This record gives sequence, structure tokens and C-alpha cells, in this order.
Amino acid sequence: MIKSGKEYVESLRALSPVVYAFGERIKSVADYPLFAPHVNAAAMTYELANHPEFEDILRAKSHLTGDVINRFTHVHQSVDDLVKKVRMMRLLGQKTGTCFQRCVGLDALNGIYLTSYDIDKKYQTEYHQRFKKYLKFVQEKDLMLAGAMSDPKGDRSLRPSEQEDKDLYLRVVEKKKEGIIVRGAKAHITGTVNSHEIICMPTRTMTEDDKDYALALAVPIDAQGVTLIFGRQTNDTRRLDGELDAGNAKYGIVGGEALIVFDDVFVPWERVFMCGEYDFTTELVETFAGYHRSNYGGCKVGISDVVIGAAALVAESNGVEKAHHIRDNLTEMILLAETCWSCSLACSYEGYKTPSGAYTINPLLANVVKLNITRLNYEWMRLAQDIAGGIIITLPSEKDYRDKDVGRYVEKYFKGKEGFSTEERIRLYRLIENLAVGAGLPEAMHGAGSPAAQKIMIGRRGNIEEKKKLARVVSGIKEDIYFQKIVGMKEKEYFAQILRA
Amino acid sequence: MIKSGKEYVESLRALSPVVYAFGERIKSVADYPLFAPHVNAAAMTYELANHPEFEDILRAKSHLTGDVINRFTHVHQSVDDLVKKVRMMRLLGQKTGTCFQRCVGLDALNGIYLTSYDIDKKYQTEYHQRFKKYLKFVQEKDLMLAGAMSDPKGDRSLRPSEQEDKDLYLRVVEKKKEGIIVRGAKAHITGTVNSHEIICMPTRTMTEDDKDYALALAVPIDAQGVTLIFGRQTNDTRRLDGELDAGNAKYGIVGGEALIVFDDVFVPWERVFMCGEYDFTTELVETFAGYHRSNYGGCKVGISDVVIGAAALVAESNGVEKAHHIRDNLTEMILLAETCWSCSLACSYEGYKTPSGAYTINPLLANVVKLNITRLNYEWMRLAQDIAGGIIITLPSEKDYRDKDVGRYVEKYFKGKEGFSTEERIRLYRLIENLAVGAGLPEAMHGAGSPAAQKIMIGRRGNIEEKKKLARVVSGIKEDIYFQKIVGMKEKEYFAQILRA
Amino acid sequence: MIKSGKEYVESLRALSPVVYAFGERIKSVADYPLFAPHVNAAAMTYELANHPEFEDILRAKSHLTGDVINRFTHVHQSVDDLVKKVRMMRLLGQKTGTCFQRCVGLDALNGIYLTSYDIDKKYQTEYHQRFKKYLKFVQEKDLMLAGAMSDPKGDRSLRPSEQEDKDLYLRVVEKKKEGIIVRGAKAHITGTVNSHEIICMPTRTMTEDDKDYALALAVPIDAQGVTLIFGRQTNDTRRLDGELDAGNAKYGIVGGEALIVFDDVFVPWERVFMCGEYDFTTELVETFAGYHRSNYGGCKVGISDVVIGAAALVAESNGVEKAHHIRDNLTEMILLAETCWSCSLACSYEGYKTPSGAYTINPLLANVVKLNITRLNYEWMRLAQDIAGGIIITLPSEKDYRDKDVGRYVEKYFKGKEGFSTEERIRLYRLIENLAVGAGLPEAMHGAGSPAAQKIMIGRRGNIEEKKKLARVVSGIKEDIYFQKIVGMKEKEYFAQILRA
Amino acid sequence: MIKSGKEYVESLRALSPVVYAFGERIKSVADYPLFAPHVNAAAMTYELANHPEFEDILRAKSHLTGDVINRFTHVHQSVDDLVKKVRMMRLLGQKTGTCFQRCVGLDALNGIYLTSYDIDKKYQTEYHQRFKKYLKFVQEKDLMLAGAMSDPKGDRSLRPSEQEDKDLYLRVVEKKKEGIIVRGAKAHITGTVNSHEIICMPTRTMTEDDKDYALALAVPIDAQGVTLIFGRQTNDTRRLDGELDAGNAKYGIVGGEALIVFDDVFVPWERVFMCGEYDFTTELVETFAGYHRSNYGGCKVGISDVVIGAAALVAESNGVEKAHHIRDNLTEMILLAETCWSCSLACSYEGYKTPSGAYTINPLLANVVKLNITRLNYEWMRLAQDIAGGIIITLPSEKDYRDKDVGRYVEKYFKGKEGFSTEERIRLYRLIENLAVGAGLPEAMHGAGSPAAQKIMIGRRGNIEEKKKLARVVSGIKEDIYFQKIVGMKEKEYFAQILRA
Repeated sequence: MIKSGKEYVESLRALSPVVYAFGERIKSVADYPLFAPHVNAAAMTYELANHPEFEDILRAKSHLTGDVINRFTHVHQSVDDLVKKVRMMRLLGQKTGTCFQRCVGLDALNGIYLTSYDIDKKYQTEYHQRFKKYLKFVQEKDLMLAGAMSDPKGDRSLRPSEQEDKDLYLRVVEKKKEGIIVRGAKAHITGTVNSHEIICMPTRTMTEDDKDYALALAVPIDAQGVTLIFGRQTNDTRRLDGELDAGNAKYGIVGGEALIVFDDVFVPWERVFMCGEYDFTTELVETFAGYHRSNYGGCKVGISDVVIGAAALVAESNGVEKAHHIRDNLTEMILLAETCWSCSLACSYEGYKTPSGAYTINPLLANVVKLNITRLNYEWMRLAQDIAGGIIITLPSEKDYRDKDVGRYVEKYFKGKEGFSTEERIRLYRLIENLAVGAGLPEAMHGAGSPAAQKIMIGRRGNIEEKKKLARVVSGIKEDIYFQKIVGMKEKEYFAQILRA
Repeated sequence: MIKSGKEYVESLRALSPVVYAFGERIKSVADYPLFAPHVNAAAMTYELANHPEFEDILRAKSHLTGDVINRFTHVHQSVDDLVKKVRMMRLLGQKTGTCFQRCVGLDALNGIYLTSYDIDKKYQTEYHQRFKKYLKFVQEKDLMLAGAMSDPKGDRSLRPSEQEDKDLYLRVVEKKKEGIIVRGAKAHITGTVNSHEIICMPTRTMTEDDKDYALALAVPIDAQGVTLIFGRQTNDTRRLDGELDAGNAKYGIVGGEALIVFDDVFVPWERVFMCGEYDFTTELVETFAGYHRSNYGGCKVGISDVVIGAAALVAESNGVEKAHHIRDNLTEMILLAETCWSCSLACSYEGYKTPSGAYTINPLLANVVKLNITRLNYEWMRLAQDIAGGIIITLPSEKDYRDKDVGRYVEKYFKGKEGFSTEERIRLYRLIENLAVGAGLPEAMHGAGSPAAQKIMIGRRGNIEEKKKLARVVSGIKEDIYFQKIVGMKEKEYFAQILRA
Repeated sequence: MIKSGKEYVESLRALSPVVYAFGERIKSVADYPLFAPHVNAAAMTYELANHPEFEDILRAKSHLTGDVINRFTHVHQSVDDLVKKVRMMRLLGQKTGTCFQRCVGLDALNGIYLTSYDIDKKYQTEYHQRFKKYLKFVQEKDLMLAGAMSDPKGDRSLRPSEQEDKDLYLRVVEKKKEGIIVRGAKAHITGTVNSHEIICMPTRTMTEDDKDYALALAVPIDAQGVTLIFGRQTNDTRRLDGELDAGNAKYGIVGGEALIVFDDVFVPWERVFMCGEYDFTTELVETFAGYHRSNYGGCKVGISDVVIGAAALVAESNGVEKAHHIRDNLTEMILLAETCWSCSLACSYEGYKTPSGAYTINPLLANVVKLNITRLNYEWMRLAQDIAGGIIITLPSEKDYRDKDVGRYVEKYFKGKEGFSTEERIRLYRLIENLAVGAGLPEAMHGAGSPAAQKIMIGRRGNIEEKKKLARVVSGIKEDIYFQKIVGMKEKEYFAQILRA
Repeated sequence: MIKSGKEYVESLRALSPVVYAFGERIKSVADYPLFAPHVNAAAMTYELANHPEFEDILRAKSHLTGDVINRFTHVHQSVDDLVKKVRMMRLLGQKTGTCFQRCVGLDALNGIYLTSYDIDKKYQTEYHQRFKKYLKFVQEKDLMLAGAMSDPKGDRSLRPSEQEDKDLYLRVVEKKKEGIIVRGAKAHITGTVNSHEIICMPTRTMTEDDKDYALALAVPIDAQGVTLIFGRQTNDTRRLDGELDAGNAKYGIVGGEALIVFDDVFVPWERVFMCGEYDFTTELVETFAGYHRSNYGGCKVGISDVVIGAAALVAESNGVEKAHHIRDNLTEMILLAETCWSCSLACSYEGYKTPSGAYTINPLLANVVKLNITRLNYEWMRLAQDIAGGIIITLPSEKDYRDKDVGRYVEKYFKGKEGFSTEERIRLYRLIENLAVGAGLPEAMHGAGSPAAQKIMIGRRGNIEEKKKLARVVSGIKEDIYFQKIVGMKEKEYFAQILRA
């Protein structure tokens, strides 16, 4: 089934999750104005799949059923699938100018698919079979999943089982015949309140002592015992102050993160995909993180397209579009963004087939994508601020602009070059404020793992031993057999001869 | 007179400016909750002058009256004054964590002092005498001045007099016996609503055609015809959502900027300090900009002290204060901040006496300060975000934290290491959000002029011709007389001789 | 035919080019010790094609003859060919630690192939037929071609025909029945002295006035009237001081550039591939530059593998391989190098078929590759210097190390950790000096065009108009049809409704 | 006594050190062509002190004798002395375009002066008295001292006394009545071969086990048992190939470093300034390093003036001096250089008096200077390469330029714009190669200690505890007494009140 955007929004109304935000219990997620932009952005992952111009990118063929499905529920079956996935990310970034949230669940599906296969192979468990059934369900219903990895973590110098409060990482507290009882929380989880399901994974490598924390499972968003507490984002309540001030009133700012509390939640075994196999936590964490990191050169670059366009327009409306410092800044923004895009493309094109049959990305390059994003995204947003001017943080409110007494002053004094209305200029400035000043940047830093995590992976995957061998040959510490062929003798003789010459 | 902080706040209540914000006319600036943090931050420039530990830095002796005055009303009489000025900036940045607004007026006073002296010398006008009287008045009343330079500018490819709407730069529309009538606006002016006076300067070099725009003058904040429209800042209304969410509820975010509309405002001649002398606009712009740019390595570095401290504390509360990536990030932040501080110190220490008797900073280095700030400040805030984690944009609201149903979840799951309460952690995270994510950065970019302006000045003041001479000598294109002394002959002979050897 | 490395060296002995270097006429290029490393590096492009482990990368099937050929003479027939080409670049960088020179000719072949096809289509000329014949000859003989684009240029503010000395760009001075006479020079041409042929292209867009300069042609290296003057490279004569001091005595430093003087050289028509069609100069320049720029994320990254390995080894030999600043630096080097590699991969994978049937790379991303190299390559070499220590520029000479009196001191005092001999350490330090200090960096900056050229192309190819459209939709200036589908109404209505809620 | 440059050179001829270089024993340092540029650069520190225009900077008044002395032998008696010292550094960098070597000894003098005073105070030793006598001798003879700190170090993971070969750090092997016998080596010591004396300091903090290594002492350059082995620098032998190719034939490349071997060298007690007081090694290392690091924003910035000038001239000679990318690059180079200069100025201006009476620099900022140099110097040299073009590594040799057959081609084809001769252009290109490609950069990285050392010091001196206090107050964790004064109540009450409003 391929839902439309509207059907997705409708489907949320059928759910009854326990959601708190700004000190109140929210009755209908789909109808709460402060959630609206997040719902709309997620809805675009549905809506665009219904337009022929995007079908190639947003639809896929289920390898389980052969049905046409939304690519956001697809397990990648080829390199082409991987490449289309990052194209889909860029496209949605371009269309929404924000986080559309749904990739986390997609990456969780793919990560668990691979790992559950490998667990079963080692332990003759049946996680993978269960998971395929679950996947089919997700595909058939075209569901949105909140991929939940980060635990609250407490004192980071202690392992999960060493914490004073044992609930600071999600854990199993009881195993029953029909299922398990879990307690704890997942924090900072994107898109949760407007998802249909929550899919949990461990947040780090677990040791034997932590095996109660080695958990992968799925629960419906409104499962008994699940409470969601919505987080604040920079400028979040602006959306109540009128359309203009929000900057991107339709799709908002980043993704809408929540704390998910599991207060002794029952999970039936058919929804449990890892339970105690701590020796597979590294694989699951790295696999999920790899997929997820590879996305950032898609979605954030799509957003860069919007901010570059907005910056170019404000420059034009100021009459300075030909000033060389403006052009230099725009060129630099493109350079940085396309660099990240290249990394996402490369790590997708260099993907490979896993034993499970699913395809995964090149893990070294996926970490390269993300670590670059944690720097270059900041830089291009800095350049957007440079082009836009201080006005993005000094513009009067829409209410003043609409005011009968002073509105005319705003109209008069924020007018730019012929061809742009003051309102258009306000819209562009507010959009740049939204994109370049707010919560998008910390998200780019910490989503899919912080820089330190990526550095560890790059150090580990960078194959330094192989590079040492190369250095030994070029420096003459080890013999160079190809060189010997060329000169027809050993290095020593050759240099003796040439230096005599 | 040295006002206390409280006296300053009280003094605002005696004024009746026309101020609009968020679509309403504000009755009392001092009592409007959304302005409160700005008022408080400015009040600190008064309050600290009343504590012995800061007197050396915050007080000065008036060269006009010999009275002890607040340094924010002082015209610098020595290099020591210049150095103390940047120390005062850093101190106030440390104490408020934000912009305290009052330096703009201070720099305007100094800039006009110098320039009016030079105008009088050329044209036998009496601007300087008038200005000294005005300065005495400011010192005696311990007034806060909004330094108003930026005009709305319209189409930046056209000069003021070429704009379709002639009011897009502030201009004189009529000259009378007792004074002049001015019309137009100043935009993005920091601290205006809570100032006592507005002091205007031209925003760019004016040519003869633009001479109606060559204006320097002062008006009371509540002068007839002056309307202020307050601008929005990122996260501004957060301050209404409780103390915690604001991050820095006491002192807020940046400085509170306003659009100042002059609707045919009358200015008596004793408050006019330039009127038509377009050939002195460059001097005034550059002098003011020089002073003002030199401050940024003070105030922003003071703020960096706060954010470095906050980042170190959250790392500690997470149990990771000894992780090498945390230490590296803190070291890097200190490096970047102290680099900017060094630039501010150097440009102050290398200051010099002007013909007027007042001291000014080294103009090349002042531009170096500011251009560095437009980059390094971003980088240290990026690093603060790296250390703090994504939590700064996902934390639930204070209202949820105080909620009877879900408050306990927030308490439990956002607890860190022993020794820090959850509330303390929330305070630190919110402070970092306030400092590192919001409006502080665009302010650092564009306050005191945008990077392009600083680059032009650095290119112009960098003395490339002198450097060319050095290159000609070292490369042997020109004779090196010192070298000839050493070797006792001409270069040619010497090399002939040495190469023979 | 697939030559071996030795056969290539032998083949050079059969030629008799007019070559000058260091003030003397060189009799045999293959036997002149100062050229030896360049000859050896180029020989590796031949030798490796003869080893099964590299055949897939270094061999291709000629689309003209179906014969198996060296990939360095191949016109790319697929995306896979493009990707293999950059893999070949990285491989050779890893094996030689330097420039192997032969890619310039390869890119010239591909660039002229495409362009000559397009010229013929417009003008019914027969350049493409001629060129295919020439290509077959190159493939059959397995020739090395010096790709010659840069002209001396004189005063860069003047076009070729405006120069006082008309010869500052290569030009046709006479057209005859059998061929043309050309005069002028090509400067900084890599690998020339040890090539078999020279293949010339225009260095910039030509206008009608410059049409005598719109030239593409090939001449044998020893054609009548051709004189080669070899350029100096940093540390070039070190190779005469013993094997150790050179750092990479086998393969040397960068590529060996020469000034090629054409003193009225006759070129028969069958070797002329453009002559006067100035409207195709842009295409040829951009096509060649695109191919060539795309290589730099291959070859330079291959060299980075060597320098990273060498840096890791010296750290180990100093006993500091686990120090976190060493590991951080190595990780950073890998990040930067793999970023460039990703760009080369992406621009190859995103290649496409041209009307001629040959494949070309994505031109935006090719410029992204190269512009990144002009920065990131410098940074990773800086980090290599950081790890290696000042010793790379203070080590005594090999002659001192071998000296009977003081050799023992060098041996004793430059000893590191157990497991590394002093000689091994010297080899590694000298290799790092060779790679990180010398001529490799300016080559990375200016080879395939200077940064300014890449910026122009990125600005031009970055599709800013498309990005403006995106910004207009997201900001609400233009209608968002997908959004309307989701919410079931126009934006205006929607916001009116939601803000009422 | 103030020697002239010529007298200095002459004075070297009176010495008979044991020096090896390039495999031979050097008879006269002053007459060996490969040493000539180093001798000349050092001679400039003498020569310039004899010209009235530089006397204020290069001369000082001895606090011991009241005599006028060369500032290179002066112990700083005021902040003004510290500032003049960095001005002297910049001046000499401008005049020589290279390292003039003599500051190392100057900084050693100052560092030992301070430390010996403190040792005596604790242990009632008489090092300081001895040292003052020695200092007087140095001032009277106007001597050049090689400051020798770095030991060979062997396995860096082991302390000195843990090394297998105990000689890998300089140590005392015997104490006698008249003096001590020392053995070991100092490595990478700048300017040694053309110094009069060697002054040694420990290279790291020593513990009790390492107390034999806690040594400060001075020996004449030709003391019995001292052997010097000269190190290679990039491009060193170019100076034999003609004046042009060297780039800076007069003053050369960096400083000329040597390995100093101490083969049981006797040092009389009056030349021993620390012997076993390991608890003062940290002070001496940090004091010396502080002085020395503070210099780099002087000398390297002086060199930047030369390279900026050279880059501006080649741009002019190419006819592109007005191209905006050229101007941008020059501006950026000035920004970076003046940033480093500001740091050197600031750390000097913020110097202070020590118990010994001598003045020292601000230690935090001195490390900021040096760490910036290890990055920004690379960047401005990269920009110089960008402006200059690849020609700096492809220019034919001077011998070809002078060749009767091909010289005319070089003349013709490397001609630029009217107003510059080809020879002038060659000189400028070669100068840029010398400055921007060679050994200057690793020297900037590792001289005065590597980046890791500076980071440790910055982390330690950055006063993070103080910053934490600031964050606690601003975030509301601790009370803000000034705020309470302003608002007239406690924070809690205030916010309760304001939020009610």
C-alpha cells in the first residue's frame, strides 16, 4: 500500500499515544498546531510517492511480496537502491527544507534485517523470520517508524549495568512465555509523536554484564506503558505567532524529538528481534549508524539547496547579486554541499551485498559523510548568514508588519530592489533564520552519532596497516618487485649504478 | 554621576518613547517582560561601576570636568583607557553572557569627538564645541546612548540620493534657524528601546550628491516623531515560558535591536554634529567602526568564557570531563577565544593620540579582530554544541519538568553523574542553547559591519606597497645595503665569488 | 600491444628529442640520472598492466579494434571505465608515491575525442576520423603522450591576439596543403621529456580574433623544431646525493615538467584535430579539465595512503603510536583523503554518455574534487609534518650517516624504539619530507587548473536558478502543490485555520 | 660592545669547532658556501644594530653594567623590552626573509636567568650569581648563543633514565671539583655551527630518577669533545647552482640546524646553572618555551611581509593584480599574519615582572601565538602558492636561462607584463618557492615545541575553573549578587513576579 500524505495524517488520528508537550497532554497529534509542521514534513514522504515525477525515487518493489511499496519501508536489494535512497533524501530536503524524520525507521529496518539474520545463523534463533513478518506488516500498512537508539545514559563513564539507576538504558525486566517486559527510556528520538510504531535498538556495544540491555524490538506508538514527552526546539513557539515569523511554517524546524518512557511495557515475542545476544550489539549499532550517517549528505544537502537559493534571492533583492563576495560565498556553499553529496553518493555506490541478501553502504565512507556534515554544514550556514545580513535577527514581527499604525514603516523601510515585495523579503529572511540559525545545526552535529563516534570508526576502518605496507615499499624498507622488473635488478644495485653515473 | 543598576532602570520609567513590539504599543519599557533581559544586561553596565572590585575598569575621570564617570561615557585619553575599555567588554560579557548594548553609544561618542574636531579645523564650524557640551551632559547624567549607524539602504547598488524612495537613508529635509528637520530611519540598532538617547551617524561614505545624508546628531529617545519598532530574536518569547527554558533568563539573548523611524524629527543645532560635510563621512564611519570592531574580542570572548565554563560543566555532569575529545575541544575553544582577545588587546595597546587629543585604536588590527570574530566565534560555538550534545534542542520544556504527571520522568531520565541535579543540568543545557544556537552568531557576523567591509579595510590598511619593497630587496631585485655591509661588496661580486668557491 | 615497464624505458632510447636541463643538452633521457625517477614512475603505468592482480584496472578493450590495451590509451566506454580510471589513479599513487604523468595524455585523448566529434557534426570536417586513426596508432604502440594545454600567457589581462609578442600562446603561422606550421610554446607540461608524443590543446576559450590559437594537434616528441627545457623541482638534485636523502629515490617528486618550444614546427593534417574552430575551444578546455580534475581524488589520495602509512610508522618508531594526538591526526588525514576520494568516485559514477559515444564525468563534481584537493591535500600534508616532527628538515645527510668519523653518532642518536633501525627511520623521515614539504603541494594546487578556475566552474554549474525555485516554494512565495494535497487546501486558508486553533 | 655584521663573520673565523656536513669536515664555517646564507642571516642581527634607524629596537641597556648592548643579549627589564623584542623579530624577518637563529640563545638567557634565581632561593645555591657573570661576558663580547633544548629522545614512551641507551638525553656522567663531565646530544639545534657558544637546557620535566638529566650549562662552540653534524634542509644545495635558483641566496632557508654531540665534555662549575635540581626543570622548560613561542608571531610575520609582497609583485607582473581572487588572497594572508602578530604583541604587552626582576610574557597567550603559527603560517603560504602559480616548481634552472642555446626561449616565454624583466620574475618566483614550499613550514610547526605541547599548556593555563564559576552564575545555579541589586530581590522572586506579569 502507498499512502497519500493526507491518508498518513488521517492515520495518525486513529492512534492514541500518550503525548505530553509544553506541560499539557496532547489529545490529537495531527491537530496540535505546534506539531503541525513535523506532521506535514513527514507527510511529504508519503505524498511525493504518489506523483509520477518522483515514483522512481520514492517507490520500490518489496523483495518479500513483490508489491510496490514506499521506499521508506524497503530493505535495499541493490546498489541502485542505496543510491536511490540518498537521492530520495536530497529530494525531500529540497521540498521540505527540514528533517522529514522517516529515515530513522528505514535505517532501523535495514540494520535489524541484517543483524537478525546473523544472530539466527549463530544461535539458531528465529529473529529474522519474525522480523520479516514484521517488515511485511510495515510495508503493507505503509507505516512510519520512530527509530529509537539513544538511551538517556546517565553517567557516561559507567556501563549500563553499572549505573546507580538501572533504568537509564532500556532493559528487559521480565521474560514471559508470550513476550517480555521492558523498562527504561529512549531519548532525543526524532519524529516519534507522529509515528505509528517505535522500533528500538541498543545504543552501544554491550558486554555480558549488560546483556539485559541487548534489545531490539518494536512497539506500537500507543502501547500500554509508553509515554512520550516532546522536546523543545529553538524558536518552536514562533509558529503560533503567524505564518511569516516561523520561516518555514509549513514544515518547521528539524524533526520533533521526544523522550520515550517505557514503564514496564509488554512486548510480544513476535516483535522482539534481539534479546540478550550482546555479542551482536556492535553489529547492529554499526550497521544502523552506517546507513543513517550515509543519509546526511542527502537530506542536509537538499536543505542546503534551499538555503543557497534563499541566500541568492536576498542578495538579488538587495541589488548585490553580482558583488564578488556574494558570488564567492555562494560558490563556497555549493562546494561544501556537493562535497557532502559526493560522500553520500560514493558510500552508496560502493555498497555491497551482505549475507542476508540486503545491501549495505561502505562503512568507512559513511562515517566520512557524517563527520564532514558536522563541520561543513555549519560553514555553509555561516555563509548564508553572511549573505543574509543581521536582519535575520532584527526583523520586526509579522504582527508589527500587519499593524495598522506601524505596518507602513515596516513596509517602507524593509523594501529592497524593484521586483521584490517587502513581504517576499521577510519570507526569505525568516526562512534563512529558520535554516541557518536554529536547531538544524545541532541536529547535524549529533544526529546519527556525535563526531567522536565517527572519528573512532574512521580510525578503525581506515586500514592503516595496509598503508604502512605501501610506505615500506616506497621508502625502500621493503623490496619493490615491480620496480625491480622495470630496472632489471635489485634496488641496491640500481642505485649503486645510477649514482656512479 | 554614577548611576546604580536600579537607578538606571528607574530612569527608564521617566521616559516615554513610542515603542512597538509584537504588534502592540509598549507602555513601560522597564516593565515589559519581553524587554526585561535587555534592560537587565544594560543595567549591569551601571551596576558594576558601583562595586570596588570593578571600579578601576568601569570608572574613568572625565577630561572635561575631572569628575569620576562611568567609562561608558568616557572619551579615551590614553592607551591605558583603550585597554581598560576592552577589559570592561570582556568583564561584562562574562557577567551577563550576552550583549550589554551600551558600547555602541560609547563608540559613537568617541568617533564623533574625533571627527567633529577635524571638521571644525577645516571649516571653522563649531561642531566640536557643541559636542563637548553634549558629552558633558551625557557624562553628568550617566546616560545610555543608542549608537545608530545602519540605514535601511534599499537597493544596495544605488547610492542614497539615487534611491527611488529618498528616505531609505536618514536625511535632512529642512534647515531652520534653531535646528534641522530629519526624515528616514536607522535599522537594526542595538539597545535602542532601553536607551535614553539616540546618536546618529552616516552609514557609509557620502559623495557631494548625498550631502543631505551626511548627518551626525543626537535626539532624546522620546523625541517627537521618533517611533521604535522592536525586532524579533531567535527564541525571544521563550522568556515567557518559564525561567529555565530561556537559558539566560536574567540577561537574555543579544541586545534587542530596533528600527528607529524619524518622521520629520526636529533636532536643535546644539545637537547637530555634522550636517552636509560629506567629505568627513569616511572618517566618521571608519573611526566609529574601528572602535566598535575592536570591542568584539572583548565582549564575545567574555561570553566565550561563559560557554566554555558551561560546556566543561556539562561534560563533568556526564562523567566525560577527562575524555580526550572533550579536553581537545575545550582547549580549541580557549585557543580561538584567546586569539580574538589578543587581537583586541593588541589593537588597543597599539592605539595612538589623534589631533583632538582623544586616543584611537590601531585600525588595521581592529578589523583583524572583527573579521576573526566572524569566523572563530562560530567555531567555538560549534565546539560547544559538540560537547553539549543534541540534548540542547530536544530537552522537554520546563512546564513538562514541573508537570505532576511526567515531571518525574524528566527528573529521572535527564539525571547525570552524582553531584549535579537534573535542574542544574537543564540550566546548563539551556544556557548553551541560548549562547551557541541562537541570535548571538549572526550578531557576531554583522554587528560593527559585515565581513566584506572588514576585508576591504584590511586590504587597504595592510600596506602592501611596503611589503613589495621588502620582497624586492630579499629577492635581489633591489640592492640590500645591509647585506653589502656584511659581505663588504655588492651582491653580484659576492655571488660570483662564492659560487666560484 | 601492452608494453612492459622495461620495454617502455627501452622505447625512450629509440627517440631523439632535443632536451635541455640544468644548462646541458641531454643525450639520452632514459639514462640521465636526474630524470630517472620520472622515467621509473611513468614506467609503472606500463609495468603494472602486466601483472594479473592489476589487469582489471590497468587494461581495457579498445572500442576501435577490440584489442586489449593499456587503460592509459583508452577512450572511456562506460561508467565502469570512468570508475576504473580513478581506481587506477589511486593504485599508481600508492605504488609510486608520486605523479606518474601519463594521465594528462589520457585525458587529452578523451577530451579531443569528444570535441572533434562535435566539431565535425557542426562543420562537416573530418577531425574525428583523423583522431580515431591517431588513437588507434597510440593504442597499438602503447604510447605515452604529454598532454599540453598551458601556454606561457604573458600578460594575463590580454587575450592571445592582444599580446605584444604573438607567440605567447601556441598558434598556426602558416597553413599548407600537407599540414600546418605552428609557433609558440606550452609551459609546465608534465612528463614531457619521457613521453613519445606531445598532444596540444588550447588553454582557454578563444574568440574569433584568437582563432589562429584554436589548435589541437599531436607531434612526435622529437619532431623537427621542438625543444624541451626541463624545469626545476624542489630538492631535485638530492637524487644525486645518495639514495636515502631523496626520500623516494625510485620514483621521485611530482612529474617532471618542461617548457615545450615550437619553433615553426610542421604538423601534417592527419595530426591536426582542431584548427580555427574557436567556438569549440570552451568545450575542449572544459572537457579535458573535467576529466583531469576528476583524477586528483585518485592519484593524490593514493599518495596520501603512502604518507599516512609513513607517518604511522614514524610514530610507532618513536613509541607514540597510541598517543591520542597522533591517532587524531591520522584519523583526520584519512577523513580528508577519503573525502577527496569520495568526490572522485562520485563524479565518475555520475558520468554519462556523450554524443560521440564516449563517457564523461559529472562536470560539477569534477571541479569539486579538484578544489577540495587544493585545500585538503595541504592539510593532510601539514598533519604529516605534525606527526613526523622537525627532524624531516634537520636530519644529517646520508654522507654523514655513512661517514667513518661521525656516522656512529648519527646511528646512535637517531635511533628510536626497538624494532626499527636508524636507517629505516631515516628512510621514513626522508619519504615524508619528499611527500609533505616539496613540490607535490603546488602541483596539487595548480595541476589541472588553479582554484579560481574551479570556482568559476562550480559557480556556473551549481544550478542556482533551480535552488531559487526551491526557496520560493519553501518560503511560501510560490505555491506548494504537494503541501496543498496534504492539507487539502491553499496555504493561506490552512494557516488562517491553524493559527485560529 | 656592539659588533657589526662583518665583525661577527670575522669572529667566527677565530673559532675552531668540529663541524661535519655533507660527509666532510668543514674547515671554516664562515667560508663554507653552503653555510653562507645562515651566517649572513645571523650577521643581520649584528649589522642592523649599527644603523640609527633600528637602534631603538636592536639595542638595549644592560641592567648589569649599564652599557649599551645588542638586544639579543639582553634580559628584559620591562614590558617595553618585551614588546621591542617582538618588533625586533618582525623587523629581522622582513629584512632576511628567513630565520636569523639568534633568538634561541636570547630566550635561553632569559629563561635561565629567571630559573636560576628561583633555584638559589630554594636551595641557597649560587647558580644565579654565576649566571649573571656569564651573561655579562656574553653582553660584553656580543656573542651569539645556540640555545640547545631538544634531546634525541629515543623511545618517547620512556623517560630519560628508562632508555636502553642512557645517552639519549644529555646527562652528567661525573662531577668533579672544577666542574662536570657531560655526555649525550642535543638535536635539531638552530644556528649552532655559526654560534660562539652553546647553552643547554633540559627538554622536559625531569623526575627524581632523571636528576642526572636536570642540567643547564654553557660551553664554547669549540669545546673539547663537542662535535656538530649539520642537517639537510629542503633545497639546500640549490645555493651552489647559481644565485637565482636559491630564491633567497643571501639569507637562505630557515636556520641551519645541527646535531650537537657531547662526548664526555668538561664544563667548569662557573658555566653550570642547574645540575640535579629536577624540581626546577618544568619552570625552565616552560619559561624558555614561553619566551620562544612568543617570538613566532614576530619573525614568521616578518617573513609573511616578504611573501605577501612577492605574491603581490608576481600578480602585478602577470597583469592580474586587480583580479578579485588575487586581492582576496592577499587580504586573507594579511589577516592571518596580523592575527599572529596581534598574539605576539598581546602576550608581550601582558607580560609581568618575575621575582628575579626580569620580565616574562603572558604564558597562556605565548602558547596561543605558537599554536596559531602552526596553522595560519601554513595557510598563508598555501595562498602564496595559489597566487604564484605552478611555475614555482616548473621554472627552468638559471643555467638554462643563461644558456647560449636555450636562454632566449626562457627569456621570451617567461616574460610577463611590461615593466618586469624575465629575470625579475624568476627572482620573485624562486623567492616564493623558497618561502612557501620548503623547510620554513616544518620549522614553524615544530620550532619552540610541537602543537601537542602548546595544547597541553593552553588547556592547563586556560583557567577553566574560573569559567565554570561564570557559567554557574549566568545559568542561575549560583546566586548573582549584582543582578539582585538591580532588581532589588532574589532571582526566584523576580522570575515569579515577571512571569506572572
